[in-house]
Amino acid sequence: MKKEKYKFIDLNYRPKNDLICLFRISPARGLSMKKAANTVALESSVGTWDKISGLSERIIKEKGAKVFSIKKDQVKIAYPVELFELKNMPSILSGIAGNVFGMKAVENLRLEDISFPKKIIKSFLGPRFGIKGIRKKLEIKKRPLIGTIVKPKLGLTSSQHAEYAYNSWKGGLDLVKSDENLTNQTFNKFKDRFKKTIKKMEKVEKETGEKKIYVENVSAETKEMIKRARFIQDNGGNCAMIDIITCGWASFQTLRNEDLDLIIHAHRAGHGMFTENPKHGMSMLTVAKIARIIGADNLHVGAIFGKMKGEKEDVINIKDEIEKQFLSKKHILNQKWYNVKPTFAVCSGGIHAGTIQKLVRVMGKDIIAQAGGGVSAHPLGVEAGAKSMRQAIDAVMKKIDLKEYAKTHKELRGAINRWGYLK
Amino acid sequence: MKKEKYKFIDLNYRPKNDLICLFRISPARGLSMKKAANTVALESSVGTWDKISGLSERIIKEKGAKVFSIKKDQVKIAYPVELFELKNMPSILSGIAGNVFGMKAVENLRLEDISFPKKIIKSFLGPRFGIKGIRKKLEIKKRPLIGTIVKPKLGLTSSQHAEYAYNSWKGGLDLVKSDENLTNQTFNKFKDRFKKTIKKMEKVEKETGEKKIYVENVSAETKEMIKRARFIQDNGGNCAMIDIITCGWASFQTLRNEDLDLIIHAHRAGHGMFTENPKHGMSMLTVAKIARIIGADNLHVGAIFGKMKGEKEDVINIKDEIEKQFLSKKHILNQKWYNVKPTFAVCSGGIHAGTIQKLVRVMGKDIIAQAGGGVSAHPLGVEAGAKSMRQAIDAVMKKIDLKEYAKTHKELRGAINRWGYLK
Repeated sequence: MKKEKYKFIDLNYRPKNDLICLFRISPARGLSMKKAANTVALESSVGTWDKISGLSERIIKEKGAKVFSIKKDQVKIAYPVELFELKNMPSILSGIAGNVFGMKAVENLRLEDISFPKKIIKSFLGPRFGIKGIRKKLEIKKRPLIGTIVKPKLGLTSSQHAEYAYNSWKGGLDLVKSDENLTNQTFNKFKDRFKKTIKKMEKVEKETGEKKIYVENVSAETKEMIKRARFIQDNGGNCAMIDIITCGWASFQTLRNEDLDLIIHAHRAGHGMFTENPKHGMSMLTVAKIARIIGADNLHVGAIFGKMKGEKEDVINIKDEIEKQFLSKKHILNQKWYNVKPTFAVCSGGIHAGTIQKLVRVMGKDIIAQAGGGVSAHPLGVEAGAKSMRQAIDAVMKKIDLKEYAKTHKELRGAINRWGYLK
Repeated sequence: MKKEKYKFIDLNYRPKNDLICLFRISPARGLSMKKAANTVALESSVGTWDKISGLSERIIKEKGAKVFSIKKDQVKIAYPVELFELKNMPSILSGIAGNVFGMKAVENLRLEDISFPKKIIKSFLGPRFGIKGIRKKLEIKKRPLIGTIVKPKLGLTSSQHAEYAYNSWKGGLDLVKSDENLTNQTFNKFKDRFKKTIKKMEKVEKETGEKKIYVENVSAETKEMIKRARFIQDNGGNCAMIDIITCGWASFQTLRNEDLDLIIHAHRAGHGMFTENPKHGMSMLTVAKIARIIGADNLHVGAIFGKMKGEKEDVINIKDEIEKQFLSKKHILNQKWYNVKPTFAVCSGGIHAGTIQKLVRVMGKDIIAQAGGGVSAHPLGVEAGAKSMRQAIDAVMKKIDLKEYAKTHKELRGAINRWGYLK
């Protein structure tokens, strides 16, 4: 009878080529963990709430999900790869991250991690450039990349935007990015802004002899988004940003599938809606893996020392996951990446020159450190703010303490005097 | 000094044509509600974490968000409509439902409701058919519509799927729907399934003299999704389902913009990730409003008496919001709908004939009641399960108590004997 009741539990099962989910489950009041885990596995694969005639033993055996590990509240479930349509992230997530979050059988449910099998990973394109490709474009071998977000987020005209970008690049930044909610507002139209800003980029590249990246936001209805991305490509641009959460997975796939000669910069605005509660929702780690699989070249992962939440260990795990070819750590699932290119981790949100030293020590050199307010609110202006960031990177690469380096670099000094610094 | 500190608070402000958000804020430890509210308004409009030179008083005045009401943890913020790009839901949400959920300044943040101004609402298409259009298609004037979801969710062949659909329609159901995670799996291919099932629909329409709806799932990468939707249209179908959360807003807009001659059935799989915690995330009410604005003809809203969560009052509010032209209720924002067509509320998840009477009493007649297990697990089979649903509706329309009606209707009796009934 017990066996009949929990058909989706098989603790002796050893997954091979399955997709594996690591859930944390808080069962509904009065329900055992076994019952709740069984319900999650059932609802996210082939089952429903009552025994139905069409659900044969064969279907359960061949296509049913299997709970194969229960340790305290951590439950691992294996899904046969045949359950999923390849190249279709929405469909995959509708199965394993769909109805299950709203079932009465669970008080809370957290999808901590997904380990994707080769067949699924290889059905997506992955990043076109990845870390190496972007470094090659910029001709920067080892140092962390630095960038800014044009601030204020909204309100500047397209000319002011271009001017801000020019000053930032001129001061030594590699990337200049529009904010995640700036698209095609009446006071700052997309094409107008792009044309003015790309001109400035061409100018500053000549003046400095450095290559630059201009991250412009294409987030919109899919067809309009693709139009804007093509406009960027056809007018000398090199990077398109998409808000992957508010646009959604289907359109992100579409953008990547166009295979334009553009770096894809993935912004995660809105993720906090479902990643912040440790007992419910989906982890940022999971979001990051999906973003790499689909093909983000750059992905916002958190800044640890800034204005946004994100535990140090979590952010490091995310960075490792999107940059390595194999990851095996406690509390997260093993993942092989089958030569999918690594994604650059973007650290952004409250960053300034004074945080750089510590940020690089913790996160390594394969990051993009972005400062918005930390550039624009510099007491000596935007260009000085940009310089302070570059000087901080120089100091780190020369292994000179920031405070020491600041003695002979007034822009870095200005930043540290305003915001302090982390050792 | 105080005024300087909280530039985004103006409790005397009276919004006119603004977009208004109702947030519930739990400030971070040590932070006042005023400070936290100011930070939310700032981050979701024009500001950043430090005072920056480019953020002029003019920009704050013209484009800054304004906190205009704070009542306990309920904070209302008005956003000038110019902040937003029309026709661009991702961009709108990246502003008001983006970074704010992950800021250190808030312990928790809940977007309870958005009141959209006319200008934004009118920039989207809204439902093509709406309740009236669908009723006209089906030639059903007043009674609630009834449907099923083919079960098991996954595992049937396309022929078994078509057979299930046939029996359901034959038994008296109006709609037959594929499950949210069934798309184009190897064991049940999209086109094959569609062709076989639509043939059965044509057959059953002739046999019964009734019009039927076949809800097929097109959730996929956007271009592939549109291809599948066109395939449905070109091959005699009348409805496409999209998983609006896992596909995302950009692709949902794209599907609607194609303006195909198809009912759009919006499934909400995955919403529970961010709607379930009353203190954090975004409410289902907000999701529902966005879905109506973009153009869902049908939207899953919860079933109250089934397997999925959803407080009775919340579900009723959602239903009212997507069906009325003006809504004014306590605890939610006023909303005028400017003739946007009403969306059918779909009640689904653990529904069976025995729940129908109560469901209709609570939710009214303008609903689509869908039973998956409640049809397929009927002791006398699928067609009998369908009949039991239709008999329950007949009883409700004739104002005869279900139990009474069951005495002379064996399929209804079978359902009630198996699952009980709600008075």
